[in-house]
Amino acid sequence: MKKKKIVTIGGGTGSFTLLNGLKNYHYDITAIVSMADDGGSTGILRDELGVLPPGDVRQCLVALSDSPGKLRELMNYRFTEGGLDGHNFGNLFLSALEKINGGFSEGVDQAIDILNVRGKVIPVSEGDMRIKIRLNDGRVILGEKELDDNDDVRSTGVHDIMLAKSVRAHKKAVYAIGAADFIIIGPGDHYGSVMPNLLVQGIKKAIKNARAKVIFIAPLTNKKGLTSEYTVSSYVHDIEKHIGEKRIDFIVCNTKKPHKEILMRYEKKEGKNSLVVCDEQNIAQCTIVKGDILCKEKMTRKKGDKIAQTRAFIRHDSHKLARAIALITEYKEYKTFTFA
Amino acid sequence: MKKKKIVTIGGGTGSFTLLNGLKNYHYDITAIVSMADDGGSTGILRDELGVLPPGDVRQCLVALSDSPGKLRELMNYRFTEGGLDGHNFGNLFLSALEKINGGFSEGVDQAIDILNVRGKVIPVSEGDMRIKIRLNDGRVILGEKELDDNDDVRSTGVHDIMLAKSVRAHKKAVYAIGAADFIIIGPGDHYGSVMPNLLVQGIKKAIKNARAKVIFIAPLTNKKGLTSEYTVSSYVHDIEKHIGEKRIDFIVCNTKKPHKEILMRYEKKEGKNSLVVCDEQNIAQCTIVKGDILCKEKMTRKKGDKIAQTRAFIRHDSHKLARAIALITEYKEYKTFTFA
Repeated sequence: MKKKKIVTIGGGTGSFTLLNGLKNYHYDITAIVSMADDGGSTGILRDELGVLPPGDVRQCLVALSDSPGKLRELMNYRFTEGGLDGHNFGNLFLSALEKINGGFSEGVDQAIDILNVRGKVIPVSEGDMRIKIRLNDGRVILGEKELDDNDDVRSTGVHDIMLAKSVRAHKKAVYAIGAADFIIIGPGDHYGSVMPNLLVQGIKKAIKNARAKVIFIAPLTNKKGLTSEYTVSSYVHDIEKHIGEKRIDFIVCNTKKPHKEILMRYEKKEGKNSLVVCDEQNIAQCTIVKGDILCKEKMTRKKGDKIAQTRAFIRHDSHKLARAIALITEYKEYKTFTFA
Repeated sequence: MKKKKIVTIGGGTGSFTLLNGLKNYHYDITAIVSMADDGGSTGILRDELGVLPPGDVRQCLVALSDSPGKLRELMNYRFTEGGLDGHNFGNLFLSALEKINGGFSEGVDQAIDILNVRGKVIPVSEGDMRIKIRLNDGRVILGEKELDDNDDVRSTGVHDIMLAKSVRAHKKAVYAIGAADFIIIGPGDHYGSVMPNLLVQGIKKAIKNARAKVIFIAPLTNKKGLTSEYTVSSYVHDIEKHIGEKRIDFIVCNTKKPHKEILMRYEKKEGKNSLVVCDEQNIAQCTIVKGDILCKEKMTRKKGDKIAQTRAFIRHDSHKLARAIALITEYKEYKTFTFA
């Protein structure tokens, strides 16, 4: 049987989770990855070496890699001492490959070989992609990293985001979208990972014109000041407004409640109504695919890992998510369906 | 035919050159590598991360690697900007593997897998190996890096070197020496790469007791203050004095004169009589194997590469060296022999 072509659009941990599950199915996978990251190890490399941001691409490569666990562990290894403190080994790996190969994509292609990656990973753009955040009071802040760290953002609230300067989509990304059977948007940070992709010149048009069915994986939780009190339909409307068309066919929603204690901890930081509610009545044009896609494992935090925050405790499960996608790709004609 | 077991003892660029040629022959190769390096990227990693010095081991891994050229290039890639300036990617790779695997040797074993290395690479010791340099005026200086950079060393001259504290040989190194058919000492910096190995507790005894024939590859050039006006027999006597026995069976000597201009440039820096003369009369007990083993290629210096100094312009040729070794391993009963 010919493999179905799946294109994922996202970045960071959300894409990692999805791809890590999807790769076990008989799909031809292309991950299109946001290149707006400018924080942490990635931000330092970007500024000091003038390379493109490697962090999100690295996560996708590791997710799709068929290499032994130790090589994956190496790619995620973070130095914790001296001048290398905070640098992620996989980021250094991609930056060195970019330098040697004279281009980020060429470096990623070589990484795909070295890491036995099952699929393709394509940066959404090779331009200098940086986001500007417009707050509700009209002020504008530069840099994706400010979405997580900036108190003004959290208290004033984000009106919308845009790119600091226009960048063009990678040709291979446009081509992959055109050839796809299914396009999966998300999961991922709404302003940090999902939306930046849609702001790249050429991506909206490619999605509009694609023959693929579009699947949206709804976030599990809202973030204070960014997506406070959002419902599933709020996310869908945001995305479709950007694409400029009612383009989403399927929405994957979680129905499983997280453990009370974890939720309380989360809401203490991110505010009340942090869980995203699936308001089906407002998205009647889409097929809703709902069930338990929640990860039950507790996140283990490693010493020196500044990434694992409270929010990571409520997250998608790779394998449950992939199973939900498999239901959709085999889907014939139900309207709403639920799974165990 | 059963592969002959060859153990090389050295470190750095000399071992790289030898192994790069030897790997094309039908040998079972084990490289034993000095762990005394404390300069450059290696020195920083050693001090800041508390890892063992990766530089010399990296060079041997790359030499024996069967991976495509690009992966070898990656391992030798040196960052030239920002906080990573001067760091070698391969060194970071070995240091991260050491951290993940909880030990340097275990990390090296994993690197051998990843890089498709044809042979074994064993650190001579896993102890904290540092050298002390005793000058001719009695002063003592700490650190192998001082051999190259220190004006006192160059003007006063080195009396001998010792280890700052005694370290024990890696068990696998002792075992490999015991099992070898041939042990090759050098080529390499006399005090920087060759001698430190012989100072490690257990190595001398292993060489004395080994059933192997011992081959010494004589250096091409002397270094001011370190081995000024040394002849081949001076090197041989130094080494045999340390081993405590006349143990060298074969000596490989170069007969090809370097280009006049290159020699002049070298002697301007390192003093007159910089070329090592093969004084056969003083090493009559050994079989002398002499011929052209000089590299004809010009060294290309890359931007930011602080390593390629004048001395590197006069160096061994990998393939000529390997051919000389092949003559010896097939050797039956000649006394002195020369080759084209």
